[in-house]
Amino acid sequence: MSADRFALLDLLTEYGARLDAGDYDHWLDLFAAECAYSVVPRENYDRGLPAALIYCDNRAVLRDRVRALRDANKYNIHTDRHLIGLPRLVEPDGLLIEAPFAVHQTDQDGVTRLFATGLYRDRLERTPGGLRIRDKLVILDTFAVPSLLATPL
Amino acid sequence: MSADRFALLDLLTEYGARLDAGDYDHWLDLFAAECAYSVVPRENYDRGLPAALIYCDNRAVLRDRVRALRDANKYNIHTDRHLIGLPRLVEPDGLLIEAPFAVHQTDQDGVTRLFATGLYRDRLERTPGGLRIRDKLVILDTFAVPSLLATPL
Amino acid sequence: MSADRFALLDLLTEYGARLDAGDYDHWLDLFAAECAYSVVPRENYDRGLPAALIYCDNRAVLRDRVRALRDANKYNIHTDRHLIGLPRLVEPDGLLIEAPFAVHQTDQDGVTRLFATGLYRDRLERTPGGLRIRDKLVILDTFAVPSLLATPL
Repeated sequence: MSADRFALLDLLTEYGARLDAGDYDHWLDLFAAECAYSVVPRENYDRGLPAALIYCDNRAVLRDRVRALRDANKYNIHTDRHLIGLPRLVEPDGLLIEAPFAVHQTDQDGVTRLFATGLYRDRLERTPGGLRIRDKLVILDTFAVPSLLATPL
Repeated sequence: MSADRFALLDLLTEYGARLDAGDYDHWLDLFAAECAYSVVPRENYDRGLPAALIYCDNRAVLRDRVRALRDANKYNIHTDRHLIGLPRLVEPDGLLIEAPFAVHQTDQDGVTRLFATGLYRDRLERTPGGLRIRDKLVILDTFAVPSLLATPL
Repeated sequence: MSADRFALLDLLTEYGARLDAGDYDHWLDLFAAECAYSVVPRENYDRGLPAALIYCDNRAVLRDRVRALRDANKYNIHTDRHLIGLPRLVEPDGLLIEAPFAVHQTDQDGVTRLFATGLYRDRLERTPGGLRIRDKLVILDTFAVPSLLATPL
């Protein structure tokens, strides 16, 4: 049980660390073979509106998306720093969790700014290789993220 | 022992999550039957000055306060996002803890800003229903929070 | 094993708490007898460039540095608030870890700002007194920290 809890913390920690390192290929490895990833403004999520800013419903689409982001990032050079809060077990088995996050970005002039805050809502899956993300919902506190597409959240 | 540690982490996580969801009724459920909640600027706390920005010394007062905040919030519409750091056990039994926090707010224009940082100092109580907050002291890093009353911290 | 994990979390928590309290003497106690502390911009670290903003390669130098900072701080009065993310075990024994952090500063006018974000990379040591920091590398997301020298990160 408590081993499981640490496995969950480790998954979230790896998630942020790989994004911050710009290591998108290994970030993808944190997702299950069948997976989904979407970014939704909080307002839409709270109202049950389906409109997402990003919606990838399988691994191939997510991989393509990340490659496109990486190319776009050449024109919006910055580094990310995620701070991810402790996860809340929405279901007692720990396979549906929520965790708050803040992402800070540093631009080429060395200015660090708060970029976005929100809540992760992750459906997880136990696999032989360990805990993986089956369905990640990034609920953004704002609907207005100008340079949203620069890097995954 | 380590189960206790996770119970403590869960309490802090729920605290932030319920506030961020605007679920103030269930947030109140995290407090013990006899409880206190106060918000004090760090400067006053460090100098031992009693002046608090908010001081609720029992549950009924806290409930009224939260209702008043909720009404006031209609005129200052925003959403909160708490990031709460890991707790420090001030006393080895884990019933007096401190944890740093940052609160970010997003307004109706979709702008997310750092709102406040500080330190929670919580006296906890073991109850049949689980760990509860007996006395919460919110030590704010600033004495100058203009829209302080909009939501509990 | 899980006791070890909590000891690691406690070390990071103490690290931030003692800095935020301005308790630099007890902050020094978190380092091993033989220790190093350096602050390096991310850009330099990523490129393998040795140039550090601060480099203390033993305890006496670190102690002197902290005293100098404390004196300098009289002219740049502010308080710090660290938020330190969960540590990633870079080596499975947990003695080399990385953890993201954000530091917020509040000035004398009561204005709280994001000061810096980055990554701690800590080589730890088990001692009879508990887990201690042998070599702390503070990898700053920005190369441009104007008032860097005010307090340790």
